[in-house]
Amino acid sequence: MPSEFDLIARHFTRPTRHTVLGVGDDGALIAPTAGMQLVVSSDMLVAGTHFLPDTDPVDLGWKTLAVNVSDLAAMGAAPRWATLALALPAADEAWLAAFAKGFFACANAFDIDLIGGDTTRGPLNLCVTIFGEVPAGQALRRSAAQPGDEIWVSGTPGLAALGLAHLQGRCRLPDPAACIAALQRPQPRVVLGLALHGLAHAVIDVSDGLLADLGHILQQSACAARLELSQFPAAALRQGAPDALAQACLLGGGDDYELVFSVPAAQHGEIQALADALQLPLSMIGHIERGERGSAGSVVLLDHGQPVALPPRGYDHFARG
Amino acid sequence: MPSEFDLIARHFTRPTRHTVLGVGDDGALIAPTAGMQLVVSSDMLVAGTHFLPDTDPVDLGWKTLAVNVSDLAAMGAAPRWATLALALPAADEAWLAAFAKGFFACANAFDIDLIGGDTTRGPLNLCVTIFGEVPAGQALRRSAAQPGDEIWVSGTPGLAALGLAHLQGRCRLPDPAACIAALQRPQPRVVLGLALHGLAHAVIDVSDGLLADLGHILQQSACAARLELSQFPAAALRQGAPDALAQACLLGGGDDYELVFSVPAAQHGEIQALADALQLPLSMIGHIERGERGSAGSVVLLDHGQPVALPPRGYDHFARG
Repeated sequence: MPSEFDLIARHFTRPTRHTVLGVGDDGALIAPTAGMQLVVSSDMLVAGTHFLPDTDPVDLGWKTLAVNVSDLAAMGAAPRWATLALALPAADEAWLAAFAKGFFACANAFDIDLIGGDTTRGPLNLCVTIFGEVPAGQALRRSAAQPGDEIWVSGTPGLAALGLAHLQGRCRLPDPAACIAALQRPQPRVVLGLALHGLAHAVIDVSDGLLADLGHILQQSACAARLELSQFPAAALRQGAPDALAQACLLGGGDDYELVFSVPAAQHGEIQALADALQLPLSMIGHIERGERGSAGSVVLLDHGQPVALPPRGYDHFARG
Repeated sequence: MPSEFDLIARHFTRPTRHTVLGVGDDGALIAPTAGMQLVVSSDMLVAGTHFLPDTDPVDLGWKTLAVNVSDLAAMGAAPRWATLALALPAADEAWLAAFAKGFFACANAFDIDLIGGDTTRGPLNLCVTIFGEVPAGQALRRSAAQPGDEIWVSGTPGLAALGLAHLQGRCRLPDPAACIAALQRPQPRVVLGLALHGLAHAVIDVSDGLLADLGHILQQSACAARLELSQFPAAALRQGAPDALAQACLLGGGDDYELVFSVPAAQHGEIQALADALQLPLSMIGHIERGERGSAGSVVLLDHGQPVALPPRGYDHFARG
């Protein structure tokens, strides 16, 4: 069996483009750009909790990095570097090669240097730490929403959760390709995040479900929200899944990695123009309201103006199972 | 059961000292010091592979961070920030509180801000990514050893491996406290690493075993080495373990997190003075030699000038089991 060092060298050492010293010493060396702050985020993916055990390793490699890239997008940062630590039950070279293929496809798509990490034996576990740069003082925060802001969401949230439901046999979609792609090949909204500088007040990415992640903005901004269901992007409702499941996926499904953001109403036209420029659907789904005493974080959901019950809250790994 | 967010907030959100934005948004924000490069290292610890499943969580918290701090020490960097991602089989609040106690004891000892991470359900797995700062161009590398350099090692390598052997019942030490402490509470040599700027050519920390880690210096510097066993720090040979085991632990035992480094012979007196100043044993154990064709990385081990057989190579997670 090849040694740990051989495996690392063979599959995870690639030329770097903006790194002083990459894989191979006790640590990597990077030189942050003068005047920029560094955004750092870390995510751990566990088989069975975050992905199906039989997931194609090429897709898994892509997604492992993409979910971290999405955190940078939500801060308005440009991706630069990442580390990857992985535990594997055995040194399965074919699996590693396929995983590396997907991982570096994502790294190349977003101009990220893999600068270090760790490879060890253990139950399958993937941990990425990612670094992006943002001009000092300009990171997009969750806590900056203001009453009167419009609430927007990118893309077609809910498709990834429907794809998972299909793969798990909880529904049978007539044409599941787009939903499965949304689940397995999420597209982090880096370009949108960068474009939201100077436009958006608060931004978050949808990893745990639209309402749950919007809830973090509301909590941290001490605000409430009023949403109009008929203005949500409706793609998830048109995939042929039962209505209740489709709506639950739209409102509470995780894994879409779209951005939810609040913008001053005066910027409405700018956001519409941005949707055209980026060729990315952007939907205005409601408004930020004052978080009166006790109501901070609360959401009122309407459908054509009539109140609708909220579905259960978003994904919480420890609250489940 | 408390939610993931509650658990994070309760145990892993502490005031930061040199961080723009810590735990709680999509990413943390740090402002690297002008003129400094960032050293980044990531280690993943898995129960059963890197630590005994019944390890005291306070000790485990210390060690999880300490092994990463040691990588910074080996680069001559000052520790600054860390992220922690952990997978737990269940949200065991008492365990988390104890783990956090040990983790923050180490963080405080080395002035490290915990700036982010992840908590999820899964087989026990701990992944730290650590960030230190070093003046641009001055990181201590593995690849800079030169023929004629003296080879030094700090502290008393071998004790940690003896402590593990004792806990596993492979030997019975009459007084195991120091060995168990070496195993469970390693002391990263940050102050030594910083002091080696301008003195040492090549530096590495002993995580996989003295000879194995020295081997990385030799390989990356295209050199060989000649070592004199009688000059090694002998503490591991005096713990009451059988001779063969004691010597194997001294030469090949992992987990000590001492530094091995090469220095020009002209600096011999400076290193001796450093040992006194730091009150830390530093032992000159041999010399770097030219790596003739095919001999790069090779080690000749002598005992009072007579050749001795080398023990098996160091710890390789995938080559084992």
